[in-house]
This record gives sequence, structure tokens and C-alpha cells, in this order.
Amino acid sequence: MRDFSQDHHWLSINTATVRKSRGADLPLPQIIEACARRGIRAISPWRDQVAAAGLNEVSRLVRSHGLALSGYCRGGMFTATDEAGLKLARDDNRRAVDEAKELNALCLVLVVGALPGALAGKAAHKNLALSRSQVTDGIADLLEYAKQADMPLAIEPLHPMYAADRACINTMEQALDVCDQLDPSKSGALGVAVDVYHVWWDPKLQAQIARAGRSRLLAFHVCDWLTPTNDLLNDRGMMGDGVIDIPQIRGWVEAQGFAGFSEVEIFSTGHWWQRDAGEVLDTCIARHRSAV
Amino acid sequence: MRDFSQDHHWLSINTATVRKSRGADLPLPQIIEACARRGIRAISPWRDQVAAAGLNEVSRLVRSHGLALSGYCRGGMFTATDEAGLKLARDDNRRAVDEAKELNALCLVLVVGALPGALAGKAAHKNLALSRSQVTDGIADLLEYAKQADMPLAIEPLHPMYAADRACINTMEQALDVCDQLDPSKSGALGVAVDVYHVWWDPKLQAQIARAGRSRLLAFHVCDWLTPTNDLLNDRGMMGDGVIDIPQIRGWVEAQGFAGFSEVEIFSTGHWWQRDAGEVLDTCIARHRSAV
Repeated sequence: MRDFSQDHHWLSINTATVRKSRGADLPLPQIIEACARRGIRAISPWRDQVAAAGLNEVSRLVRSHGLALSGYCRGGMFTATDEAGLKLARDDNRRAVDEAKELNALCLVLVVGALPGALAGKAAHKNLALSRSQVTDGIADLLEYAKQADMPLAIEPLHPMYAADRACINTMEQALDVCDQLDPSKSGALGVAVDVYHVWWDPKLQAQIARAGRSRLLAFHVCDWLTPTNDLLNDRGMMGDGVIDIPQIRGWVEAQGFAGFSEVEIFSTGHWWQRDAGEVLDTCIARHRSAV
Repeated sequence: MRDFSQDHHWLSINTATVRKSRGADLPLPQIIEACARRGIRAISPWRDQVAAAGLNEVSRLVRSHGLALSGYCRGGMFTATDEAGLKLARDDNRRAVDEAKELNALCLVLVVGALPGALAGKAAHKNLALSRSQVTDGIADLLEYAKQADMPLAIEPLHPMYAADRACINTMEQALDVCDQLDPSKSGALGVAVDVYHVWWDPKLQAQIARAGRSRLLAFHVCDWLTPTNDLLNDRGMMGDGVIDIPQIRGWVEAQGFAGFSEVEIFSTGHWWQRDAGEVLDTCIARHRSAV
């Protein structure tokens, strides 16, 4: 297992982590500057942040600072109530692949979607099996396009508490079943993003990480699970402040040969988004060394 | 599948559902009277409510009204940081079996516990595997005692969002692995409580219900998953108000021969605990007929 205690060579910052500074929106160019200033070598930006700053400008900044993208957030949301909705999702995902390519991302992260309408508060139906089928079809379609672009797709299994509204792929096992179905040769074009926040509880985690193997472990995300957790979405903890044995999980991932970035992704309305972004980044660097 | 639309013959009320009426504590004897008055044939009371009213008094009331107990809530919380703590849990669980026996409960429901201290906000360690091992040992010990008392133990897999602080058994598969280990003959002394709130998201749910079979399906709990869910513990929905396809899951359970009560268990600080308990019970009856 790599020694992270001496530097932050393998740290990546998911830019949602400093989406806000002292409660105010922080534009992506400023996030990039703040990361570069600290010798952070990689980021993972969100599409809305990129769109707000302009893809060309972000691409220029990323290149001029020599930043890697540990991933691009995000594709997915494949489910819909009709064919027109499915086509909209298909087209939008292709654009996400194009953007990821322009930014030279190591993978496009997929948050696959769940019951249509649920995120807005009113699910159109309760047929989770139908959503799962649409998701598999959506990934299959996108995979063909992404292969042409040489952009790996990383399915991110989300915590089961998001099964209704954000992602109906909720375990590593389920994600890997989809990988087996759509990419049986383990070409490297389709894999998983392992986010400790989503999977830490899973009694089969170690075994499924081993099953994934190096070719399907495309990204590794960290933060921590707080007790209590006061919000289902935006109360993630800084590494070391919660109950997840992050080094153990990193050890399992690295035992398979994963040697990429450890990406910090924290949504925290009440705490970290209220702090100064520079302080948050400094804390990420410190905790990357001490708690990851 | 049984027809619930014509009556509430198979309705049970978990007494936490009306623990409060208009925001004020409602004592168990009043809950029992309110249920009996509506022709509700079964309840599942909590130990703290029983203790407050007195076991003998509750036993007398239950018998005089001819009420069944679809379960007794709850044993478990097997984990601890030292031998003294483990022994306390062991002894307390034996008392829970005795109480369940006195009340003629159909099973003792087990919420197995997780990381010691986490429920109070400060986990003593992050070793989930250790907690899981303590849980298996705790159930094994209790099972011997419960068999003597002829009191079935129902492991309730809790939603993964409770893995840190309430229960480290989080899927049907995991619960059934413990059952296979401790009661390979499927004697009926050890099984599971299927609560749709905890397991509805699981892609392996139907298969694991089939694996459980009649001898291990000891209880069936219902409520609903709301979108959004505003609190991890106390924002459960009334059946029909959320996204869970409850009839589908009940169908899977009954296909295995389960023919017991459908127990309504709703924790709802913001909504149902603010309403009049009589109105809540009437709503449970109506939704039992229309949405379960």
C-alpha cells in the first residue's frame, strides 16, 4: 500500500468539496487556482461548474496548470418516463463524454439515475426494476460512444439511501454485474468508481473489490460517515472525522493494483461549505496524509 | 396473495407508530385501548413503553383484549467494547426473551447493534467486522436461551444508513448467512423480520426472500420511503405516500407461505407524531386496505 503520509502526490480534489467558500459560490477557475497553488495535481470538476466557467476556459486552465482529472462529474441519470426522455439522456451523456475527452479526464463518472421524478419530489412510478433495466440499456448505448472516444465509464454505486432519487445501482456487486454483462472481456472501457461513503457498510465490499480487479477499479473517492448524519445528501465528513476505516478500504483497492488518485468529495452545507475554501483544501491535504 | 382490501384482519400496529399523539407521549395502555376499539387484532410494543406501563399490566391488557403480538421490540444491541459490556447485553437480551414470552409474542425482533458508542455520537472504534463478529456471537448465545423459552428470534436487517450506529446487519443476504450459520436445520427458532423500509432497494431482495422461505420469514413490517427523506431516522412515510412497491414485496413474502400480520412501523417526528393518534390509526387501517 502506498505511503501517503509524506506528501499529497496522489490527492485529487472533487471540486464540489469547495463549491462554496464561506457559504458563497466559488467559481471553478478560482478553485483550480487554489488547488494549483497548493501543489494539488488533480481535480474532478462537475459539469455545471465547467459550464458556468466555459469548457474552453477550463480546458485552458487545466492544461496550463498541468492538472490531471481523476474523473469528470458526471454522466448518468439514464431513466425517464418515455422515449423522448431517454433520448435526451442519451444525447446529454454523449456531450458529457465529449467534455470529459476535451478535459482529458481519466474517466467519466456515472450516477445512473433512479425513479424518474423522485429527485423533484414526485416519483412517476415505483418500478425500480424498470429503472434498472433503463440504466443498463443507457450504459450499453453510451459505452459504444465512449469506446470511440477512448473515455472509460466509471459506474458509481451510490449508497442505498439514494436508490429512489439518484441512483438505482447501490452495491459494488450490482455495478459489477452490469460490467460483466456489458463488457465481459474487461476491456477497461467500463468499470466502477469506489466511493467509501457509499460502500463502506457493505459486508461483501472486500470480495467485490477483488472481483473488480485492476481493470475495473477506475476511481477511488474518499470522505467520511459522521455519527450522527444530519442530512442524507449534504452532511459528509472530512476524512478522519467519521467511522469509515478508509486506509483499510484503500488497502483493498490497492491490493488489486489500483495506483491512481484518492479523490476527496465532500458535500457539507452546514460545515465545510461555510469555511474558507483555502482552509478546506489545507485540511484535505493534511487528512490525505493522516487519515487516508 | 391475500386480499387485504376488505378488512384489517392482518393489520398489526407497531406501537412506536403512535408513540406520540399531537406531539405528546401516549402511554401504552391508551394505545392498546385505541387499537382494540378499532378491531385491530395485533400490536408490537417497545420495551420502554412496556416498562413504563409495567409488564404485568400490559400482559393483563393484551390478554383481556385478546391481542396478538406480531413481535416484541426489541432485543439486540449486542456489541460492546469489553467483556462486561457484552455480558450486560447478554443479560438484557435474556430479559427481553422473558418479557416477550410473558406477552406471548410471535417473535423477538433483533436490532443487532453496530459500532459501540456511535449512537451516542462517538464510535469507540471503526472495526465493523469486529462488531459483526460480536453480533453473531451474541445471537448464538441468545438463541440457546430463546429455544428453551420457545421464543423465535427475528433478525431485522436495517437499512445501510444505520450501519454505524444501530445495526451492522444490513441486507437480507447477510442476515440469512447468520441464520445458516447458527441454525442450519431451519428449525424456526431463528429467522428474519422483513421491513420494507430497510430492504426495498436491494436488487437481491426477491431472491433472498425466496432463500429465507417460510421457516425464516418471521415478521413483515411496512411503512414507506419518502422523497425527499428529511431525517435518517424519523421521517418514515405512511404506506402509499412514498416510492416502495409494498404489494410486490408482500407478494414475494407470501409466495413463500408467510401468512402472518403486516405490521405498521412509522417513526415520524414531523408529521404523524404531530397528528392525533386516533387519526393515525384510522389512516393505518385505510392504507392497510389500499396500499399494502
